Amino acid sequence: MAGLDRIKKKRTIGLDEIPCLCTPRNPAPRDICSSGRFFYPKIEPWRLYFFACQSKADLACLEGNWYLHMRLPGLIDPHVHLREPGATHKEDWASGTAAALAGGFTAVLAMPNTQPSITDRETFTQAAKAATFKARCDYAQYLGAGPENAARAAKLAPQAAGLKMYLDQTYGQLRLDDMVLWMAHFAAWPPHLPIVAHAESRTLAAVILLAALYDRSVHLAHVSRREEILLIRAAKEKGLKVTCEVAPHHLLLTNEDIPSLGTGRSQVRPHLASTGDQQALWDNLEVIDCFATDHAPHTLAEKDGSDPPPGYPGLETALPLLLNAVHAGRLSLEDLIARMHTNPRRIFHLPVQPDTWTEVDPEARWAIRAEHLFSRCGWTPFEGWQVRGKVLRVVLRGQEVYREGQILAEPGYGKNLRTEYASSRDIS
Amino acid sequence: MAGLDRIKKKRTIGLDEIPCLCTPRNPAPRDICSSGRFFYPKIEPWRLYFFACQSKADLACLEGNWYLHMRLPGLIDPHVHLREPGATHKEDWASGTAAALAGGFTAVLAMPNTQPSITDRETFTQAAKAATFKARCDYAQYLGAGPENAARAAKLAPQAAGLKMYLDQTYGQLRLDDMVLWMAHFAAWPPHLPIVAHAESRTLAAVILLAALYDRSVHLAHVSRREEILLIRAAKEKGLKVTCEVAPHHLLLTNEDIPSLGTGRSQVRPHLASTGDQQALWDNLEVIDCFATDHAPHTLAEKDGSDPPPGYPGLETALPLLLNAVHAGRLSLEDLIARMHTNPRRIFHLPVQPDTWTEVDPEARWAIRAEHLFSRCGWTPFEGWQVRGKVLRVVLRGQEVYREGQILAEPGYGKNLRTEYASSRDIS
Repeated sequence: MAGLDRIKKKRTIGLDEIPCLCTPRNPAPRDICSSGRFFYPKIEPWRLYFFACQSKADLACLEGNWYLHMRLPGLIDPHVHLREPGATHKEDWASGTAAALAGGFTAVLAMPNTQPSITDRETFTQAAKAATFKARCDYAQYLGAGPENAARAAKLAPQAAGLKMYLDQTYGQLRLDDMVLWMAHFAAWPPHLPIVAHAESRTLAAVILLAALYDRSVHLAHVSRREEILLIRAAKEKGLKVTCEVAPHHLLLTNEDIPSLGTGRSQVRPHLASTGDQQALWDNLEVIDCFATDHAPHTLAEKDGSDPPPGYPGLETALPLLLNAVHAGRLSLEDLIARMHTNPRRIFHLPVQPDTWTEVDPEARWAIRAEHLFSRCGWTPFEGWQVRGKVLRVVLRGQEVYREGQILAEPGYGKNLRTEYASSRDIS
Repeated sequence: MAGLDRIKKKRTIGLDEIPCLCTPRNPAPRDICSSGRFFYPKIEPWRLYFFACQSKADLACLEGNWYLHMRLPGLIDPHVHLREPGATHKEDWASGTAAALAGGFTAVLAMPNTQPSITDRETFTQAAKAATFKARCDYAQYLGAGPENAARAAKLAPQAAGLKMYLDQTYGQLRLDDMVLWMAHFAAWPPHLPIVAHAESRTLAAVILLAALYDRSVHLAHVSRREEILLIRAAKEKGLKVTCEVAPHHLLLTNEDIPSLGTGRSQVRPHLASTGDQQALWDNLEVIDCFATDHAPHTLAEKDGSDPPPGYPGLETALPLLLNAVHAGRLSLEDLIARMHTNPRRIFHLPVQPDTWTEVDPEARWAIRAEHLFSRCGWTPFEGWQVRGKVLRVVLRGQEVYREGQILAEPGYGKNLRTEYASSRDIS
């Protein structure tokens, strides 16, 4: 296995000890494990990481010729479009959450730009009902900021994933142009509950100012440009309460990929950016709090049609693509887990999902093919990409919900993270 | 004379006393004056105001049947376009500063979007030379923020009126789209020297954020919209170092005037806004630090041509229009003087101009006519407007420079406010 020759030191680890390095060229589980914990050896470019074990049985994955099944915490995607209500020919709660599980995600936060938009109690209840019956993984539903719903939306805040403010052009009807309307929402939405903004370039700067004026946090969706990430860095350095997410497609595709993707299929908001923008994202990895897919399925017929809507599916490709980037030395496994589990849980005040994890084979090499995806949209901008790292098995609240290409969770198994968890009452 | 019947009380005033009210229906100077000061009686809608007298001779204006010549401090316009170098068929330093004097302005700050743009030592010197030989009133010249001149511009900062950042679409070549370039200027420009931004809507919010991140002030040019003035109010309330100016044309014209002005002549940046936007400016008068003309002359042929450039002349109409607004009860004379003298002097750290004032007849009724203007552009959007209040005489540094339709200052009489005043060395 590549990289084993670079291992320099050997050490066994204690129960609560964070291991530094290990060495065995042909290890038995006892060499690198001790009660209740195991870790993945430091084989560059993998960085050292360790995971909680549930039982000795988990260690079985360490047997054999270093063919490890690595256990990650259940991943959280704070930015998905599940298209229900209103466009279930693209996706629905059942198909979208199947895609989530297949991609290693056990929790998704669903955006409100559906048809109708989720902006009041009636539409919020409508979406929640669909989710209750159809979601296969855990979830929460955003409310959308409209021109006149600031007070009413705020009343629903504790049940919502957060408030989504659409401040630049994208898919759907929700968009607030007048900053006076932004102010109404900043004034009304509870200060300790999340606000997420689609805000590009100077709009992003504007919404950071608004959040600062109202002395509250704001989470910036799908950051894609150099000026954006550098501004967020400056704002964080100044102590402003700003967090952000970046989508894998902005880390891995640029406007130079548009010809090969095709004009219609390449449509996405924010647009694919320049290689300079992309490099700035990688150069400022520590400024990025979350990797969020912005899973935005549209059918191939729509993408190849005369008025292609913006958006890519992403739930099933994000983790493999990012594991591949770990292999390539572009980020560490800690970087990945922080941005796909730890940080989104903290930023969105999500409860712990007990007995929940995602098992991957970090070494498996395979090619991404739309035909194997569970998303209803039937395509991916990463068609044919060779990756190294694959989801093998997902366990959610003690139940195996995905295993090697098969969705095992029934529609309705997913729980609402805001209302169906005991700890959801303690959200602060 | 209208309003005299509303006068309620009588009182004579002491040397250093601020008078409250006065009453005489047929006053002699002695009734309302005492050594060294006089004031304009409270005749609604005029608010109480008083002015320093230079000598007993100044009181002559109080004689007669209340036909007062009111003395204002020399007005300062922090935002004018004098078109030299490069477009002297529209205006030049001599004609533009003649228009300034005729409008009651004794100091103007000239914008850098000339041809070539003023962005480096060479172009700055070129403009300064023209001003030295041709300016009739005192002045300073802005530097323009370009994509690559942050460090070089900063070296010239002490000699400049300030740094002008063009962040939204307007006339000329200067414009910075990438916020990383803004950051370069905010980092380089001396923190105690002025930065002025053309920034509309969310761009305005963005530049306020940038200034806050760099812990420095920013002055926002020609604010025109409700969302802008309300955001500036919120920023000021939060203690951010923000100042702003509003142009008379945004106070007095709206997009409903476009048909009567004509499409080409109505072109201006920021665009004429809605009546709601206009009302918000009046409703938030206390948030407005300066009235600036944004005097932006283009010839009638250009305005009526196929590609009309944006901009109105304004130097000669601003004061009469605003005196008229005082008569209409929309603002007080104190409001006017604060925004056309006191605040611009403070914000731009301008030296005191000794023995300098502007005399107006606040009661004179007349019609604005382009044929009487000194600006070379030959038109005004206020053609035919009936106003009440007229500039009679301007004295600059002890010399009469304008009297009843005649420019008395020679080209070259104007001094550079940054380099030719003793106190300019003390600018802090």
